[in-house]
Amino acid sequence: MATARGLMGLKLFHAWGSCSLASLIALEDAGADYELVVMDTQAGDQRKPEYLAVNPKGRAPALVTDRGVLTETPAILAWIAQTWPGANLAPLADPYAFAQCQAFNSYLCSTVHVAHAHKHRGSRWATTAAAFADMTAKVAENEVACFRLIEDEMFQGPWVLGETYSICDAYLFTLFGWLEGDGVDPRQFHRLWDHSQRVAARPPVRKVLARQAA
Amino acid sequence: MATARGLMGLKLFHAWGSCSLASLIALEDAGADYELVVMDTQAGDQRKPEYLAVNPKGRAPALVTDRGVLTETPAILAWIAQTWPGANLAPLADPYAFAQCQAFNSYLCSTVHVAHAHKHRGSRWATTAAAFADMTAKVAENEVACFRLIEDEMFQGPWVLGETYSICDAYLFTLFGWLEGDGVDPRQFHRLWDHSQRVAARPPVRKVLARQAA
Repeated sequence: MATARGLMGLKLFHAWGSCSLASLIALEDAGADYELVVMDTQAGDQRKPEYLAVNPKGRAPALVTDRGVLTETPAILAWIAQTWPGANLAPLADPYAFAQCQAFNSYLCSTVHVAHAHKHRGSRWATTAAAFADMTAKVAENEVACFRLIEDEMFQGPWVLGETYSICDAYLFTLFGWLEGDGVDPRQFHRLWDHSQRVAARPPVRKVLARQAA
Repeated sequence: MATARGLMGLKLFHAWGSCSLASLIALEDAGADYELVVMDTQAGDQRKPEYLAVNPKGRAPALVTDRGVLTETPAILAWIAQTWPGANLAPLADPYAFAQCQAFNSYLCSTVHVAHAHKHRGSRWATTAAAFADMTAKVAENEVACFRLIEDEMFQGPWVLGETYSICDAYLFTLFGWLEGDGVDPRQFHRLWDHSQRVAARPPVRKVLARQAA
């Protein structure tokens, strides 16, 4: 009863094409009951007062729970894993393995996502068109370096953390999906390409992708 | 015995002036027994083969444990909190409160640290001197926006998460300490300035800062 009440009113603010896809997949992986609120970032929904009242950062995702609002993908993913332990989405019982899970997700948010953001979001860090163009031109090189490091040093296989699918797989799948649009051939990363195909074939992910296509 | 063995050989690769200060403070907060390896990033220690063998990312921090190497500040901090639960460095028993802790640290690594890095590390994301200068010129504005958001929306007080000191306080203290060097007056953030003074006065932090000054 406490659990059921705790999950009443769960609501994910999501934008297609953004990193909030990882949280959406994890909610489906967990079998969670939630409401999906799709924002149109092209129309600036994330900057409107009604969303800033939910998440003052003005970014997706935000997950509304009955305790309050959670933001930041690594935190939301870990919360989902801890709230639905039966879904086995993270190595919760082993602090070292959990730390490796967190380290992977932390690298994705602080380095890989940031590398990608310099393509279209240069105005966060500079002001001139010349600087934006300079940043954009370097994005592919940085992304190749990031995913080469992931494939060679971090990815255990067949899933990110080894034998068991986890929240890291949903997050990796999300960011890996940006490569083609950024002019990087994802097939050069043989193990990660194979991984992305296997993630896409999972029923919770197929459900999410069908919703996007609808 | 298992615990003692588990902590044998704990070694933190640290650089003064880097975000690894947060992990160093947390180890002191926990009362951990560890070896400190100080790297000279000006001399490029973090890019030398012997360190790349430990951490292929070529960045500080790295924490060597008998299970393997941990990287990424939010993951290291959570691991320290989980490994020394008696130090009460994170709300481990409450997934929602732990997620807020993780969200705070995730914001620091993916947004605040990244904002700072554009001052001297522009070559990560661009190639021209003009772009570096453009990025550098925007750093103070971005940092003010970040710490204004932290002070007004995220910081509970008297500590980051409220009544209890946590790993978030060590991490906030570390990044807040960069403001003055980046040309931002930290005193404009009254609650965070007061916080930084209280963190600096804690015995574990005084021990760390004395070591830096030595």
